[in-house]
Amino acid sequence: MNNYFEEVTSNLSFTDLSILGHLADHEANTLFKSIKKKVVQDVLKLTEANLRKSLYRLQALKFIVIETSEKEHSVYITNFGQQALYISFSEEVE
Amino acid sequence: MNNYFEEVTSNLSFTDLSILGHLADHEANTLFKSIKKKVVQDVLKLTEANLRKSLYRLQALKFIVIETSEKEHSVYITNFGQQALYISFSEEVE
Repeated sequence: MNNYFEEVTSNLSFTDLSILGHLADHEANTLFKSIKKKVVQDVLKLTEANLRKSLYRLQALKFIVIETSEKEHSVYITNFGQQALYISFSEEVE
Repeated sequence: MNNYFEEVTSNLSFTDLSILGHLADHEANTLFKSIKKKVVQDVLKLTEANLRKSLYRLQALKFIVIETSEKEHSVYITNFGQQALYISFSEEVE
């Protein structure tokens, strides 16, 4: 079970990684620094369906938190998400 | 990172677990024994949106495989999915 984290991380899509990368680049790693979904969609030029799919995936993996208490939902990256991003970049450089 | 598997497993929704349970009950654990998405939806009385959301989640977690080579997509449970189901049931009994 030790390699489970690596397995799901290697299974991330380009869109998944783009979202994680955008959140990490903007230090959106706490509720106070979370970024509105609509902004993520616009900056990364995603369709609503593709954004929704990746957010469902990343939420299930606990790589992001989706904050829904406000009318406009916002997202931030978790420690697990930052580790996944780090692993993904390391593998690309190798 | 050892408890990552337990963390994502404890985060599964009722619909996620229902789908895993249905696949396990019918021994749909290989491509040849996979079950059509439409059948899963009908048996569990899910809306299309709820089915899609759970399948995206379970696929990202590698708890299921979605086979898309045929026109009608079908799904089966992986070893990771069976372990997640086992843990979830064990926790409920405790």
